Amino acid sequence: MVVAPLAPVTAGAAVSAMNLVGLLAFAVAGALKGADADLDPFGVATLGVLTALGGGTIRDVLVGRVPAALRSTGDVLVVLAGVAVGLLVAGALSGGAGRVRDHPAFLGADAVGLAAFAASGAAVGAEAGLSAFGVVVTATLTGVGGGSLSDLLLTRTPVVLREDFYATPALAGGVAYVAAGALGVRGATATLGVALGVFVLRLVAVRRAWSLPRL
Amino acid sequence: MVVAPLAPVTAGAAVSAMNLVGLLAFAVAGALKGADADLDPFGVATLGVLTALGGGTIRDVLVGRVPAALRSTGDVLVVLAGVAVGLLVAGALSGGAGRVRDHPAFLGADAVGLAAFAASGAAVGAEAGLSAFGVVVTATLTGVGGGSLSDLLLTRTPVVLREDFYATPALAGGVAYVAAGALGVRGATATLGVALGVFVLRLVAVRRAWSLPRL
Amino acid sequence: MVVAPLAPVTAGAAVSAMNLVGLLAFAVAGALKGADADLDPFGVATLGVLTALGGGTIRDVLVGRVPAALRSTGDVLVVLAGVAVGLLVAGALSGGAGRVRDHPAFLGADAVGLAAFAASGAAVGAEAGLSAFGVVVTATLTGVGGGSLSDLLLTRTPVVLREDFYATPALAGGVAYVAAGALGVRGATATLGVALGVFVLRLVAVRRAWSLPRL
Repeated sequence: MVVAPLAPVTAGAAVSAMNLVGLLAFAVAGALKGADADLDPFGVATLGVLTALGGGTIRDVLVGRVPAALRSTGDVLVVLAGVAVGLLVAGALSGGAGRVRDHPAFLGADAVGLAAFAASGAAVGAEAGLSAFGVVVTATLTGVGGGSLSDLLLTRTPVVLREDFYATPALAGGVAYVAAGALGVRGATATLGVALGVFVLRLVAVRRAWSLPRL
Repeated sequence: MVVAPLAPVTAGAAVSAMNLVGLLAFAVAGALKGADADLDPFGVATLGVLTALGGGTIRDVLVGRVPAALRSTGDVLVVLAGVAVGLLVAGALSGGAGRVRDHPAFLGADAVGLAAFAASGAAVGAEAGLSAFGVVVTATLTGVGGGSLSDLLLTRTPVVLREDFYATPALAGGVAYVAAGALGVRGATATLGVALGVFVLRLVAVRRAWSLPRL
Repeated sequence: MVVAPLAPVTAGAAVSAMNLVGLLAFAVAGALKGADADLDPFGVATLGVLTALGGGTIRDVLVGRVPAALRSTGDVLVVLAGVAVGLLVAGALSGGAGRVRDHPAFLGADAVGLAAFAASGAAVGAEAGLSAFGVVVTATLTGVGGGSLSDLLLTRTPVVLREDFYATPALAGGVAYVAAGALGVRGATATLGVALGVFVLRLVAVRRAWSLPRL
């Protein structure tokens, strides 16, 4: 993974921007999933909010912080905008929401979110003094926890446990963050580097339709 | 919503009384749900306890407190009494527990619980310094979190995501608590006012068979 | 229950040894469950890790501690070894993993784990100043929480709610820990005594095929 020689401030701003794209993409994805499952508007909004904010909330509870999602306001407005978009799209397509989620633009935005969330998960875990295993867990859960929680609410086994090369990039990002720290690369630079690595890995996996082998 | 000009002590006592009614109603409801699902007595008791204490426990974990349910004893005795009532009723009716849960007396007690839990959730969220969004989330989750967890244990999509005007009064209570705070109404008076508002809204919804429109 | 008059250091070491056996057995059990459910290798590993570490993680979150599983490394290595064993066994048996989980050696190791986890859950709950009810809850959840979470990920009602005399020994261990404390028996001696009691109770239940009566 090539870590661009950016100043920390620029790197931090880049990660923040990726995070906003991810919140929007995840909120839209969750709302569409809820609409496909024939939930009422409250349920659709819940799925959008949970998909976007659930992973970070799990991460914060695990490291003993009051969830950022419940303390800030900006992120929430982005998420609610995503839910609104999801409701509009679901209303317009009536049942064909699957097509939206397979659209390249959507998959790209989703990959940006996965990357930003996994990187921020790793950074928060490392800040909290977790072990290498703990950092890998917070990276993975921050990336895939929200979608998995919304799958569970719909009584579906989380997609990431069964197919697709989706959790693996997030997990690899956690490993890369730990390795970078061992090599002395930390802070916003490490976070951005990991985010870019996860993004590229996920995009390649989508392009080549990678999946893990069955046992 | 009319906020009665009660002294805080009286208002606090009123909310406590509503809370006890709610614990009892939720414990009975959870136990009946478990008995209908053919669980063993441990499972029935688990569902009763979780339905009554689960919402408050989620709330406390989110704001970083050790759950009140695990520290106090009085509430637990009420919940265990509710479980015992549920077991007796389930044994006597053998399969017809649905009739109990649709009985007006039961729906009224359940509405009292929803109201008390939503109001206490809003108050705890505000005390913990959460954002307006955070207060709405803790109000809603305290009200519907226990029932939703017990639905998940039975591998059912939480009822509140699919039908009924049940989560909406709790959510509206959270919004009202935030609005009251902005107008300078806080503490036990605000909590009681919100609880009464949620109660009335839920009762009207039951009477008129309100539900959110499908998409 | 006979409490052996061991020095606390010896008792502590005995509980630690039981804990390691339990982590290994639970990780193998979780991985086999995941393989039976046709998950990909990431999913299988997730189920093994969650089954072994999930109960203790729930316990730590409830008492406001950063989960031990995310801070330490030794336990994780044991769990990953268990996952590897599970993957190998599942690959070798291809579908007959059920036989492994019914093997007496496996049931014995699993009972050791249940006993160690329930006892440590009671001890952590008591240390955190929980009520008697809270101690019983942390004992039970530490013992059965990991397996229940992995059942939920597979969208199955947790086995412990429906059949078997499995959660009951853990719950009884929590009650015994509280009773021992009231009689002045605390610390490592109480923990070991409870662990031995839970172990024996679970083994007898397996031998005699005990289960709770249906309602």
